[in-house]
Amino acid sequence: MSSTYGKNIRISIFGQSHSEAVGVVVDGLPSGFRPDLDELRRFMDRRAPGKNSYSTPRKEADAPEFLSGLNGGVTCGAPLVALIRSKDTRSADYSNLKDVPRPGHADFTAQLKYKGAQDVAGGGHFSGRLTAPLCVAGGICLQILKSKGIEIGAHIASIGNIRDVRFDASSVGRADFHLLRGAAFPVLDEARGAQMLTAIEQARKDGDSLGGVIECAVTGVPGGLGDPMFDGMENRIAGIVFGIPAVKGIEFGSGFGGTSLRGSDNNDSFYMDGGRVRTRTNNHGGILGGITSGMPIVFRAAVKPTPSIAKEQYSVSLSGKSNVRMTIKGRHDPCIVPRAVPVVEAAAAVAVLDALLDGNKYQ
Amino acid sequence: MSSTYGKNIRISIFGQSHSEAVGVVVDGLPSGFRPDLDELRRFMDRRAPGKNSYSTPRKEADAPEFLSGLNGGVTCGAPLVALIRSKDTRSADYSNLKDVPRPGHADFTAQLKYKGAQDVAGGGHFSGRLTAPLCVAGGICLQILKSKGIEIGAHIASIGNIRDVRFDASSVGRADFHLLRGAAFPVLDEARGAQMLTAIEQARKDGDSLGGVIECAVTGVPGGLGDPMFDGMENRIAGIVFGIPAVKGIEFGSGFGGTSLRGSDNNDSFYMDGGRVRTRTNNHGGILGGITSGMPIVFRAAVKPTPSIAKEQYSVSLSGKSNVRMTIKGRHDPCIVPRAVPVVEAAAAVAVLDALLDGNKYQ
Amino acid sequence: MSSTYGKNIRISIFGQSHSEAVGVVVDGLPSGFRPDLDELRRFMDRRAPGKNSYSTPRKEADAPEFLSGLNGGVTCGAPLVALIRSKDTRSADYSNLKDVPRPGHADFTAQLKYKGAQDVAGGGHFSGRLTAPLCVAGGICLQILKSKGIEIGAHIASIGNIRDVRFDASSVGRADFHLLRGAAFPVLDEARGAQMLTAIEQARKDGDSLGGVIECAVTGVPGGLGDPMFDGMENRIAGIVFGIPAVKGIEFGSGFGGTSLRGSDNNDSFYMDGGRVRTRTNNHGGILGGITSGMPIVFRAAVKPTPSIAKEQYSVSLSGKSNVRMTIKGRHDPCIVPRAVPVVEAAAAVAVLDALLDGNKYQ
Amino acid sequence: MSSTYGKNIRISIFGQSHSEAVGVVVDGLPSGFRPDLDELRRFMDRRAPGKNSYSTPRKEADAPEFLSGLNGGVTCGAPLVALIRSKDTRSADYSNLKDVPRPGHADFTAQLKYKGAQDVAGGGHFSGRLTAPLCVAGGICLQILKSKGIEIGAHIASIGNIRDVRFDASSVGRADFHLLRGAAFPVLDEARGAQMLTAIEQARKDGDSLGGVIECAVTGVPGGLGDPMFDGMENRIAGIVFGIPAVKGIEFGSGFGGTSLRGSDNNDSFYMDGGRVRTRTNNHGGILGGITSGMPIVFRAAVKPTPSIAKEQYSVSLSGKSNVRMTIKGRHDPCIVPRAVPVVEAAAAVAVLDALLDGNKYQ
Repeated sequence: MSSTYGKNIRISIFGQSHSEAVGVVVDGLPSGFRPDLDELRRFMDRRAPGKNSYSTPRKEADAPEFLSGLNGGVTCGAPLVALIRSKDTRSADYSNLKDVPRPGHADFTAQLKYKGAQDVAGGGHFSGRLTAPLCVAGGICLQILKSKGIEIGAHIASIGNIRDVRFDASSVGRADFHLLRGAAFPVLDEARGAQMLTAIEQARKDGDSLGGVIECAVTGVPGGLGDPMFDGMENRIAGIVFGIPAVKGIEFGSGFGGTSLRGSDNNDSFYMDGGRVRTRTNNHGGILGGITSGMPIVFRAAVKPTPSIAKEQYSVSLSGKSNVRMTIKGRHDPCIVPRAVPVVEAAAAVAVLDALLDGNKYQ
Repeated sequence: MSSTYGKNIRISIFGQSHSEAVGVVVDGLPSGFRPDLDELRRFMDRRAPGKNSYSTPRKEADAPEFLSGLNGGVTCGAPLVALIRSKDTRSADYSNLKDVPRPGHADFTAQLKYKGAQDVAGGGHFSGRLTAPLCVAGGICLQILKSKGIEIGAHIASIGNIRDVRFDASSVGRADFHLLRGAAFPVLDEARGAQMLTAIEQARKDGDSLGGVIECAVTGVPGGLGDPMFDGMENRIAGIVFGIPAVKGIEFGSGFGGTSLRGSDNNDSFYMDGGRVRTRTNNHGGILGGITSGMPIVFRAAVKPTPSIAKEQYSVSLSGKSNVRMTIKGRHDPCIVPRAVPVVEAAAAVAVLDALLDGNKYQ
Repeated sequence: MSSTYGKNIRISIFGQSHSEAVGVVVDGLPSGFRPDLDELRRFMDRRAPGKNSYSTPRKEADAPEFLSGLNGGVTCGAPLVALIRSKDTRSADYSNLKDVPRPGHADFTAQLKYKGAQDVAGGGHFSGRLTAPLCVAGGICLQILKSKGIEIGAHIASIGNIRDVRFDASSVGRADFHLLRGAAFPVLDEARGAQMLTAIEQARKDGDSLGGVIECAVTGVPGGLGDPMFDGMENRIAGIVFGIPAVKGIEFGSGFGGTSLRGSDNNDSFYMDGGRVRTRTNNHGGILGGITSGMPIVFRAAVKPTPSIAKEQYSVSLSGKSNVRMTIKGRHDPCIVPRAVPVVEAAAAVAVLDALLDGNKYQ
Repeated sequence: MSSTYGKNIRISIFGQSHSEAVGVVVDGLPSGFRPDLDELRRFMDRRAPGKNSYSTPRKEADAPEFLSGLNGGVTCGAPLVALIRSKDTRSADYSNLKDVPRPGHADFTAQLKYKGAQDVAGGGHFSGRLTAPLCVAGGICLQILKSKGIEIGAHIASIGNIRDVRFDASSVGRADFHLLRGAAFPVLDEARGAQMLTAIEQARKDGDSLGGVIECAVTGVPGGLGDPMFDGMENRIAGIVFGIPAVKGIEFGSGFGGTSLRGSDNNDSFYMDGGRVRTRTNNHGGILGGITSGMPIVFRAAVKPTPSIAKEQYSVSLSGKSNVRMTIKGRHDPCIVPRAVPVVEAAAAVAVLDALLDGNKYQ
């Protein structure tokens, strides 16, 4: 099994990079909700390729086609299905990949699993293109959450060694999110953003690539969501965020950095704030024991450098059982982190809405 | 829902810190396997408290009592159930926790979710004591994996700011694991280990606590395990490891550090090694596209500093809606990282065996 | 996987007939509920063996021991675990079953699946004894449902060829249930009940056994529970009722009999009843399109004749690969239908409470 | 949640009767399989409407369009998606259904669940049209099963009061299936079939409808598939078959009829048949303790009379809170049983292939 997620909202993503279409089934959406399709298009545009020098020039018409689940533009309770047709594919670019797997890609592991039947063109089902339908699903979930006072925003926390400032985990909110959503390159500190862009451009010129970290926050979350142990909010968010290709790590609140603190510094003091319990700091990232505290959920995802690079690399010929050199042709982002920002938001939205629909949330 | 994990092997953990017993149901174990109960006891002993100055002096008789699932000492196909009876509990220590939640603990979020019905004694179902039955389940899975040539080992990668050397991700193996399993304090570099112990002792004296990072490796894993997107090995391992209390982050292979590398450095070159495809480096941590490559799986989990500290802290009185100071009484580890090492191994074992039993692994 | 059921309430049943204990984990119960243990005991007693001539004289002390999940007698949100210790077992009776499987039992199929490692004593995990923990789980669910105005009752609809009258599907309710729960032999028509008892006694004398049908009704169910297609209430109830050993069929509303009606007779006319929509008849058994209508849920389960009979039967020796005659020793009910009545109620209770806790029920 | 089924093969069905398309995602199909699309079309044709006087004259172009999951005509491991575009719909026929629900349909229960947002046209997501994508999924599963020696066939066991002969449960096989697949009206006894057709024609003339029973057999099933209790083959098959609209009952082997037998008659004697264990009779329907015995799986599904009839019926006006008379316009099958025969085969195919892919089947 593979590409399904969720308990109350179940998304099932399908398609290969160069198949006729990619898409998603979203089962379990509350009925009676009217998605704002313009807002969804704007959200999708933040992920779309071909906008600038650091993203692939391949053009996608990412406008989703809704086949079912809407009735008069309103969710009707039946599974919602959105298709994104493929255009402008060049399968010929990939003809050699079954024999010579690209380093850092899933070509080799797909070969092991599917014994040569896998669709290698463009990475097949492992392609970053599959994040487009995730954005359709997540984009609608974002709108539903917003209608309930829950908002999600994310920014580029680092590109290579260059770090943006972090969210203020205790006070992050709507103002930050509004600015970030409108930005061509979503960072909190524009000067750092400029440095990042320079580094990306340099990597592109070098035929190389860069990775980075995305920081995401969810505000307005009611306390009491999630469950202990294996169905906690950390497990659930990690369970969907690791579905985004190239994510190799996730941390909540103070995360790995928090392991260098002493307990007296990492513990978040409770205090009363006008009748509501809050914490002074938010090293717990809004989650204690798997359950939300009502403070913002804050997490960071590590995105590895794009494995597709123009530089020559070492690989093997599976048929010849020999070592070979190989060069990847085609067009690739020198850094996918900027385009992955809305994808992380989308993933978080699905996980949070799924938890919000848990029958046991108001025990 | 909460404390169940797995698709082919399903574990269901139960109990509260001070309930009559904690335990686990393990459904789906292959039949006909004879667990080595002495080896299991030795494995459990690595987690057991009360062994030294950095762990709580509470005595546990962690020897599991098997109620079902074994027939003549051999797994019979029926769900295996193991109980660990509670002894030496002092519930009186916790009487005030419903009103004044401990910073960094789940007391407050449990209150939100369960509306005052939660069992607060010793942290209830959120207690680290629940990792004992996880070790029973994982300990048996480890033995089954070993019989198939798959081994799992882990060490303390850091305590506070003091770092052990890392596993050599490409060549980690049995020799490392053997040493680590026999060590009272499992590190690769004993000098660093001594520094860590000093730091822990200092934290204890200061009425404070320390966190750390645990690195875990799985060797002998066949290629082709796991699925794309949401059922990849990273998702699955994260899904169980975040079930260990105090884990706030996980990263695979080069992880967060890999985001500072360029693609040409982070990509792992393939080469032929006596007819078998391997990678020169292992920045991918044995997983590409969610699917195992045959290289060792390597991941690190961030463990936050023990939230229970002797120092006075700030909290609130939920009944009085006022800010209060509070001091946690009772006995607590100044650092739970050493005892969490076998727990991480256990969690990895369950996830890997679950994947190994996937019907589609040999597509 | 096997013995787990449910999405919001997850029950996981364990044990073998002659293992040290059988039991159940119930995860997801609403917190803050105080089970009435006396009422639970009375419910369990309806299933208990040894009460009369048509049930096995084996004595069970079916009083469950609660290990966790209760705090001060109230559900605390953590998984509830109940054990029933085994007593009075005679494993020696079953020593030959690995070689000579009993007709109509799971001995042979367990042998195929578990390759000789299965626990054959008393039927192992396939024993009817596993319905005792199902009754613990279901008994508590019944109490929770009752607190929400939902009641469940069942009666013996037939034994062999002797049929009780059926529930009036449109008006079945509390009065019927009250009488049935208090009856030693739960039928609506006592004269038919007397005939059934005579038939059972005759079968016992003949060294033979009888089957029958159990009819179950659930009243007070709100409309709108369940989902279309594969997660409808029929699918869900069937999914748990077929977990009761010996059940070989299930039908809802007019069921198989309804296939002989014309649409104009089988369709249930809607009418207004004091501002509420009801149906004149209830051939739909309270479920249309998988979703509850607010009319009583009515279903019937077919229970095959007890496969354990005293008469000589034909089987095979698996080791000798030869045909043999065999006689089953030990003590067995000539008819398990009466004892299965509360088990069917318990199963229905778990399914209905699980649906009631669906996050999407109030879309 | 609703329209997903399966553990190893996961099908997710989408669409409404009059939405732009209906379709299915099939995740988990073994890779490297080349579906025979001509054979699939012939299978789909058996379900297609408009062929004769007892089925609706609405024309469907049920040829599925494959969007993903195939690469060069071969399954590539990625989720397979098939669409069936809608044509020839007349939504105007259904405009009044939100206010006046049709007896026997899901109009009323959908109203309760989706609060007026449901798509009523043609029954929306509850329409029998959703069985077309189930046939696509099941048709491919049938082909995969056939390649492993497993075949599935079904016939009309009864229409109204007219009964076909039953399968010989012990010897049913390829010859029967071959004849049935080629028949316009699949019965074993053609004389009975002729009577059934007459009865259907009479019901049509009367503006009424008929129900019936479908009997299905699966041959070549290896022993040892399925699990005890809640994941047995009966539970699994029931779990998908109740997803077919209008199914109100299911029974395995001797089923409800078997409850009238004594144990000595209902038990199936084992015997050696050339080194293989078989049973003389097959009252157990190929399943004991939830696990396959290697004998044919045999089950029967009860299909209620088509609720759409031309006769005037009684219903309510939900807006007016009053009783009303209503007449259903549009075109409807007087008996859907013949068209449901391949749907039952398809459902069985998905359940059996799903079980065959269980990782634990060769414990």
